[in-house]
Amino acid sequence: MCERGLLIVLSGPSGVGKGTVRKALFSQPDINLHYSISVTTRQPREGEIDGVDYFFKTREEFEQMIRENKLLEWAEYVGNYYGTPVDYVEKTLQEGKDVFLEIEVQGALQVRKAFPEGLFIFLAPPSLNELKNRIVTRGTESEELINDRMKAAKEELEMMDAYDYVVENDKVELACERIKAIVVAEHCKRERVAQRYKKMLEVE
Amino acid sequence: MCERGLLIVLSGPSGVGKGTVRKALFSQPDINLHYSISVTTRQPREGEIDGVDYFFKTREEFEQMIRENKLLEWAEYVGNYYGTPVDYVEKTLQEGKDVFLEIEVQGALQVRKAFPEGLFIFLAPPSLNELKNRIVTRGTESEELINDRMKAAKEELEMMDAYDYVVENDKVELACERIKAIVVAEHCKRERVAQRYKKMLEVE
Repeated sequence: MCERGLLIVLSGPSGVGKGTVRKALFSQPDINLHYSISVTTRQPREGEIDGVDYFFKTREEFEQMIRENKLLEWAEYVGNYYGTPVDYVEKTLQEGKDVFLEIEVQGALQVRKAFPEGLFIFLAPPSLNELKNRIVTRGTESEELINDRMKAAKEELEMMDAYDYVVENDKVELACERIKAIVVAEHCKRERVAQRYKKMLEVE
Repeated sequence: MCERGLLIVLSGPSGVGKGTVRKALFSQPDINLHYSISVTTRQPREGEIDGVDYFFKTREEFEQMIRENKLLEWAEYVGNYYGTPVDYVEKTLQEGKDVFLEIEVQGALQVRKAFPEGLFIFLAPPSLNELKNRIVTRGTESEELINDRMKAAKEELEMMDAYDYVVENDKVELACERIKAIVVAEHCKRERVAQRYKKMLEVE
């Protein structure tokens, strides 16, 4: 009866500001997304609460979750495991609620395999044009630095291929607005609405 | 060099409130859409200005436009011709600006043929569920009326097939917000952004 929620995955190159955008998004009062809390084996930092910031687990517990296929995606960074518990995501989607993940590029590729119908958003640094202008205008950056930036841009372009949308992170508030607009638009997609209509016509 | 604008077509069953939504949309100060003015052979009403509300033409002029393929779509209602001039649409899109059309369902199907890449939005009456609740609760409507509504809903469902999005017109302001969100989201589509990236990388 209940319409399945959308799975929204925000990802992008490291350092682009995924965490900042996610926090800004969830600090808004009208947000109607459910943030999927990650599982980690790292120690809680001061003020971090189990079940709010992360689910804190031992390495043994985490490895058991891997073996039992309880993680939608996982990775190891600097000696610690991080992962997304599949149960919460699946349960929340089934309740008709939209789930939001903020994960690394490698993790997003894993999620795409399990949830090809998900909505994959690539958070990109401000446009190359703007960056190049800034670099050239300032005149302090070397040719080498510009070339490095161009190389990075080419890599970003390749990474984008696996995504449905690209949101530029020129300003955090603008990036948030774009993400919210994408969610609204996806809910208006004809296939989704037509399905809703069909269900209603059957019921009655 | 310039990225082509989006063609946004708002259509839907007659009486759904297309004109009201379009007017509300264009009364907003931050709107970044270009409304395509229609051509008509009907007489200007009081206060209507040629080139603002409509391009007013004689039947001979209009029929010449038809013969010269200068209309993206056209139709005859109650003895008058109405149509969309193709020149304005094409020129504005080429300037990288988004063009907005508000037309009848038949016209939208014609536009889809010429601009399959356009963004077709179906404006739908409030959801069936809500309508049925209202009808049942009030208790004043006959079985026949409910059946009529169901039949209309089935027809709407069929009409939707040619569209990319369905926007419910439960409240004019909400419908406007959804349309704006769809335009923002479409500009974030990966194919469009990747194309922009590629151009920048070539230029530099």
